[in-house]
Amino acid sequence: MSAPSGAPGGLAQSDLLTREELQLAARNHGMPLEALRYPITPVGLHYLLVHYDIPAVDGERWRLMVEGRVRRSLTLSLADLQDLPVRTLAATMECAGNGRADLTPRPLSQPWLLEAVGTGEWTGAALGDVLERASLLADARELVFTGLDRGVEGGVEQRYERSLPLAEALRDEVLIAYRLNGAPLPPQHGFPARLVVPGWYGMTNVKWLSRITAVTEPFAGYQQVSGYRLRRDADDPGVPVTRMLPRALMVPPGIPEFMTRRRSLPLGRHRLEGRAWSGWAPIQSVAVSTDGGASWAAARLDGDATSQWAWRGWSWQWDPPAAGEYELLCRAQDAAGNAQPTAPAWNVGGYANNAPQRVAVTVTDPEPSPASG
Amino acid sequence: MSAPSGAPGGLAQSDLLTREELQLAARNHGMPLEALRYPITPVGLHYLLVHYDIPAVDGERWRLMVEGRVRRSLTLSLADLQDLPVRTLAATMECAGNGRADLTPRPLSQPWLLEAVGTGEWTGAALGDVLERASLLADARELVFTGLDRGVEGGVEQRYERSLPLAEALRDEVLIAYRLNGAPLPPQHGFPARLVVPGWYGMTNVKWLSRITAVTEPFAGYQQVSGYRLRRDADDPGVPVTRMLPRALMVPPGIPEFMTRRRSLPLGRHRLEGRAWSGWAPIQSVAVSTDGGASWAAARLDGDATSQWAWRGWSWQWDPPAAGEYELLCRAQDAAGNAQPTAPAWNVGGYANNAPQRVAVTVTDPEPSPASG
Repeated sequence: MSAPSGAPGGLAQSDLLTREELQLAARNHGMPLEALRYPITPVGLHYLLVHYDIPAVDGERWRLMVEGRVRRSLTLSLADLQDLPVRTLAATMECAGNGRADLTPRPLSQPWLLEAVGTGEWTGAALGDVLERASLLADARELVFTGLDRGVEGGVEQRYERSLPLAEALRDEVLIAYRLNGAPLPPQHGFPARLVVPGWYGMTNVKWLSRITAVTEPFAGYQQVSGYRLRRDADDPGVPVTRMLPRALMVPPGIPEFMTRRRSLPLGRHRLEGRAWSGWAPIQSVAVSTDGGASWAAARLDGDATSQWAWRGWSWQWDPPAAGEYELLCRAQDAAGNAQPTAPAWNVGGYANNAPQRVAVTVTDPEPSPASG
Repeated sequence: MSAPSGAPGGLAQSDLLTREELQLAARNHGMPLEALRYPITPVGLHYLLVHYDIPAVDGERWRLMVEGRVRRSLTLSLADLQDLPVRTLAATMECAGNGRADLTPRPLSQPWLLEAVGTGEWTGAALGDVLERASLLADARELVFTGLDRGVEGGVEQRYERSLPLAEALRDEVLIAYRLNGAPLPPQHGFPARLVVPGWYGMTNVKWLSRITAVTEPFAGYQQVSGYRLRRDADDPGVPVTRMLPRALMVPPGIPEFMTRRRSLPLGRHRLEGRAWSGWAPIQSVAVSTDGGASWAAARLDGDATSQWAWRGWSWQWDPPAAGEYELLCRAQDAAGNAQPTAPAWNVGGYANNAPQRVAVTVTDPEPSPASG
């Protein structure tokens, strides 16, 4: 197969956005960063990326096929899935393209700034319980997960499909989820059931799951070999995007200006707060800078995260010394030694840019302003 | 007060989008148009525009004040509101800026294409029941609705505030809503309570409602006299934006290409479908064109809409005569004689552009394609 490589739409010639990027940004959406205040992201605030269209699925007629290198092929209804032992866990999910719009040149695809994240409380069956019923054959090497969403990408007509090596798929916390935050999955999050692989970037968590196929060779579908690889240039086969790199985000303090989103707040003591996560290991530290990254101070981490796979809260008291302009940053490190870089690491597809958030803030002197009239 | 007028960020110098527009588009979101299939829009798919930040509101401590030109000032808790007679209605809500990104030159603000719409099933108390308790004085002329969302716009620090003339506010179907689609309001839609004024553009439906003030003079706040007016140029005081103009939208048929969102579908008979609404009168007709607007055919309207204030479904059978490129359009007319124009009507703020949707479609010949390998 001669698949195109790199970003779906090439690279931007300008800082300005194309209409095609706008079309994606108007459909998909990030989590407004003030929603970092919620340990579990309310439905509708969790980030959403739909590759093609949200398919119309009748939950009564929907079936999940489990086939390929298994002893017993399965055809499971939603009720069958719900009869398996019920698992619930909170997991933070981030789009692999989060941060893409801050790369130069900008890979043309969904133009995320920093908001493509959320934490859901997912309920479902353990994938392992389903696979145990199907009984994998000894030569099975990967599992291919196929969604019902269909479209064209890189010239290839496809259903959205991604694979996982067995060792990842059989992890205890991998779910076939049918509830989000205690309610049936909304259509846009994969109704009636989706894959949830805690720790991995969002593309792994196949929505509208319809088929699981055990295969003996590494899967070579578009989303595995063309999309979601870190490439230096278009000729580089690259390495796969897998787990989420560490990232800390803060609730932008103060109040925004409508059009610029620039923040202002009065002189005084302010609590900066946010959340941090990594798909590789628990968060070990978060540091904050109020001088554009010249100096850093350690933030206080909240008590344990809601779950091992969910973001961890942090806070820091800021008492700006004077009115004026400030640039705030935050930066996380995990227990495996992965730290956010100070600058973006560019790649063709614009994946996994975990350079620190920068928030410009005007601190104002709370003197009485002249009467307006 | 010398308030700036016109679009918050001026006019675009280019077809390309600025970073400031992207910042808004990444936070706010439209309804992916395939969600036109749902008569009631699922939470998370309904369009969302948040002027400033989503405020953190404690539902237990929240109070709604009713004051100004009333005999009895009120301080209502959520429980007090819920004790009033319960009203539920479906209402279609569209942002006044829907269609803005298709104007030339483009007013710089939230860059909506066509997706800023949704239909919610709203439950709450009738505003009239609240006002009856407060007992308006004879000189009350307008009601000012104040939200808890705070920011800076046009150089003015403000809470989001809009007014309504009494005759509009006292309409039977105007609600103070505390439930959406049967569940408590999500934070982003105004928890714990918001105004819902069926038929009017979205800016009227003040979220995170905290105060209702009866006043004797027309309200001159920013969102009334600077924002949301139809102006020919920056010196024109303009006329207020009020009710939704008629619009029909269709579910884009076939399947999309990821980056361009361009549609393709095979030769054969296809059911085009969508929904149409107007804030002025019931929808009377929807017409469809498959040749870029050169000729039109009447679509079939579904049975009565879910409510007088909700969109109405329509459909049309399309049997393309040959493979090739098509441009589909749809266009609505209401019973008051308001019809969608064929081209956008420009204004400084980019409001109420109800020019028809245009969907480019490639119809393919379903001959077997050469084997790929």
